Amino acid sequence: MKLSAIAEFLNGELAGDSKKEIKNVGKIESCSPDEITFISNPSYEKYFHTTKAGAIIVSKNFKIPESVSGMPSRVPLIRVEDPYMSFLKILEKFSAKIKLQKAGIHKSAVIHKSSKISKQNTGIGAHCYIGERCVIKKNVRILPNTVIMNDVEIGSNVLIYANVTIYHGCKIGDNSIIHSGSIIGSDGFGQAKNPDGTFTKIPQNGIVVLEDNVEIGSNCTIDRATMGETRICKGVKLDNQIQIAHNVYIGENTVIAAQAGIAGSTKIGKNCMIGGKAGIVGHIEICDNVIITAAANVSKSITAPGWYSGYRAVEQKKDLKKEVYVRNLENIVKRIEKLENKKDNMN
Amino acid sequence: MKLSAIAEFLNGELAGDSKKEIKNVGKIESCSPDEITFISNPSYEKYFHTTKAGAIIVSKNFKIPESVSGMPSRVPLIRVEDPYMSFLKILEKFSAKIKLQKAGIHKSAVIHKSSKISKQNTGIGAHCYIGERCVIKKNVRILPNTVIMNDVEIGSNVLIYANVTIYHGCKIGDNSIIHSGSIIGSDGFGQAKNPDGTFTKIPQNGIVVLEDNVEIGSNCTIDRATMGETRICKGVKLDNQIQIAHNVYIGENTVIAAQAGIAGSTKIGKNCMIGGKAGIVGHIEICDNVIITAAANVSKSITAPGWYSGYRAVEQKKDLKKEVYVRNLENIVKRIEKLENKKDNMN
Amino acid sequence: MKLSAIAEFLNGELAGDSKKEIKNVGKIESCSPDEITFISNPSYEKYFHTTKAGAIIVSKNFKIPESVSGMPSRVPLIRVEDPYMSFLKILEKFSAKIKLQKAGIHKSAVIHKSSKISKQNTGIGAHCYIGERCVIKKNVRILPNTVIMNDVEIGSNVLIYANVTIYHGCKIGDNSIIHSGSIIGSDGFGQAKNPDGTFTKIPQNGIVVLEDNVEIGSNCTIDRATMGETRICKGVKLDNQIQIAHNVYIGENTVIAAQAGIAGSTKIGKNCMIGGKAGIVGHIEICDNVIITAAANVSKSITAPGWYSGYRAVEQKKDLKKEVYVRNLENIVKRIEKLENKKDNMN
Repeated sequence: MKLSAIAEFLNGELAGDSKKEIKNVGKIESCSPDEITFISNPSYEKYFHTTKAGAIIVSKNFKIPESVSGMPSRVPLIRVEDPYMSFLKILEKFSAKIKLQKAGIHKSAVIHKSSKISKQNTGIGAHCYIGERCVIKKNVRILPNTVIMNDVEIGSNVLIYANVTIYHGCKIGDNSIIHSGSIIGSDGFGQAKNPDGTFTKIPQNGIVVLEDNVEIGSNCTIDRATMGETRICKGVKLDNQIQIAHNVYIGENTVIAAQAGIAGSTKIGKNCMIGGKAGIVGHIEICDNVIITAAANVSKSITAPGWYSGYRAVEQKKDLKKEVYVRNLENIVKRIEKLENKKDNMN
Repeated sequence: MKLSAIAEFLNGELAGDSKKEIKNVGKIESCSPDEITFISNPSYEKYFHTTKAGAIIVSKNFKIPESVSGMPSRVPLIRVEDPYMSFLKILEKFSAKIKLQKAGIHKSAVIHKSSKISKQNTGIGAHCYIGERCVIKKNVRILPNTVIMNDVEIGSNVLIYANVTIYHGCKIGDNSIIHSGSIIGSDGFGQAKNPDGTFTKIPQNGIVVLEDNVEIGSNCTIDRATMGETRICKGVKLDNQIQIAHNVYIGENTVIAAQAGIAGSTKIGKNCMIGGKAGIVGHIEICDNVIITAAANVSKSITAPGWYSGYRAVEQKKDLKKEVYVRNLENIVKRIEKLENKKDNMN
Repeated sequence: MKLSAIAEFLNGELAGDSKKEIKNVGKIESCSPDEITFISNPSYEKYFHTTKAGAIIVSKNFKIPESVSGMPSRVPLIRVEDPYMSFLKILEKFSAKIKLQKAGIHKSAVIHKSSKISKQNTGIGAHCYIGERCVIKKNVRILPNTVIMNDVEIGSNVLIYANVTIYHGCKIGDNSIIHSGSIIGSDGFGQAKNPDGTFTKIPQNGIVVLEDNVEIGSNCTIDRATMGETRICKGVKLDNQIQIAHNVYIGENTVIAAQAGIAGSTKIGKNCMIGGKAGIVGHIEICDNVIITAAANVSKSITAPGWYSGYRAVEQKKDLKKEVYVRNLENIVKRIEKLENKKDNMN
């Protein structure tokens, strides 16, 4: 892509060789001469004179830093309103060139005749299996070796990577992405204890619903409800290896980092952020706009927005205060010793 | 299913329209008119007059709560000895209607000719692979894209979901269930350090044995033994994303919640309950009837039944007491300050 | 394998029946008469007279323990320099007999014609998928149902188990092993927040590089870089269910135990050991030769070699000291009470 075309695409002002060919995007500290990069955060300006970039996206009022050599820089610049958002756009542009799966159905895929697969630009990869009575809409891509069981509904513009499993009856909303190895709709963990110590399996009869614009990372597990549904609302983004138990509800635009786990029937509000490895027990409610830090364990409902942290999570302010006291215990004991010694001296 | 048939199936007394058709089961607070629900816990009686259920399973001596309107309820009731167990039965009845996999071998499955697959109602799905010298007994269902390597033995009535991998030589007992994405028999993590800092792989020569009536959730990993076997005893139930290392032994009827991990050569007793995200180090023993709470980390053998909790797990009573003291540190310091001030005043 | 052949293979001295046939290796406490075992650690000498082993590998200067019965042992011995390393060799010898995958390409595999697969002893299993422009070198084994997307490079002597997914553009070094269910190169978790609370996906344009001699356990997830690469250096060994986020760098010969997670852009040094369930936040650096204990959470860069532990990891010495103080809090409070009482008595 020529620099002139990139400048036009970004609605920016180009200073430099308009015919230069750019082949990819890169980080300012490590990119190569056929890559474009950006400066948004001033702390990266130090790389301005050393970068090998073929071009840099900067803000309209960007001032070129002085070089140690005093020599003027010759790197082409594209000046835009918001360099970070412009860079995301061009990153997207280059990413879109990677075609992950052709439209059409691969001849090795096994698809039950009762399922309806859109013919409008939907592609199903090699060795996929699609069960009975499924509905798959337009512009969907399903990569090789993914298994979709009976009665699954998949909306438009959905991207499902390889080796995914979607159990019977689950529903996937428009524009959603599911990464490899994730399991949608496996049985919730329901076992009724018998008097002899053995367990009887409680049938898991519900489904999982992913609403629109949801992204699920790789090797996640989202269990079907015992009855009713496990629901992941629109705009929710999950990182990798996340466990969502049966009958959980996750509100709109909540994001969850890797290896977090949410136990059964818990309801998470909208716009929450849950850190990596965090654990949330079952049957509680987390209100909207809550931030749970990495590795925190939440065992009670949270009813006020804000930050929560700790091995037994509380408001972060309280948690950090407690930690300060604990780290100060050696001094506390010294103070007691001093008092005891004075005592002794006095007696 | 007609209400009369359900009442008969549950050996209950029906009061209401015996010809009513019930299509599914549901939760009392959210079910629809063609679903049946139940009341076992009195805290759900508040929904009695507002539920849209087509029928409710209640106990023999259930008293209909008064309605605000004073109008009598018209919802059909089925009175039984134990509403919860009766509900599980009917839940099971409706679940059984979902046929996950036909009997017979799908033509796209690849099965080595030296393997013996029962012809009595065993079904193997599309794109499955079954290696050499395997034995698979009757009433087994293996869903699409599952891989079973050489010399694996699978008992009767086993259900293996899609995209499962079972490594060579492992044994799966009767009536077991393995959910999607789980890996049975991958190599244990054995690496011998060389003087130059590199590692030499220690071959993992053993197997994994799942005894009868075991259930494994989705995306679990159970490693084969270095020598001998990793053994999951009968009736053990694992939730999702659980890691069981090489040479671990898990006693009968122990249940383990999601994302827990057990390190190498550890032996867990019978009838234990291990909470989600709990971690147990290698080479220790946990006796029978131990309950380890969620996110607890166990680093020493446990020799007495009971509850254990905490980041460094101890008896839960001790752990909670410690926590109370820690939360009280601000007050403790205030008491010291008071003593110090009195001191000063005295000097 | 005859004992004489084993003794020769190990360059050891055999005392006993040289024609005895050994069929496998075993643990001294549980092996059978056709298995060979070893004694390296003196604590296992107690099994010398009770083991059923067909032969025992011992050190050159091993002294036969006295038996209770006074009867001399008749078990054949092979005396070697280093019994443990010799045992690993013979373990390897027996393991090598298990052939996991034949050379050649299974007829059900789908391989794009633009990909180059070595004909020198490389084997690709049933239902594998290999995308466009891949290069796979000699002596590689790829087990059934593994998916390799476009533009992937795989070195020589690589072993990839079943149901693995490798995303487009990733590179796998020579002699590496990837266990089942692992996902190499899924998108990093990058989401830019919009003013309305929704998120825009940040394209993940980089790759994952595994250098030579890397081993990845089962159900791991290693995300591709946003730009550039996520790099796992040579000799790194990962256990199961490990999460490596985008742009992470892991130095040579570092080993990581199961269920650990490393957040984005963090750099781990060489020769580190990271315990199971440990968590490391993003954008920090861990220097060489650091040991992080199981379940530790690291939130700051570590600049000195040594042991680190704790829910909020610090140097292990500090962490354990803090823990001692916390456990002693009941006594601390008693000492304060005593001081307060004396005070009261004095007033």
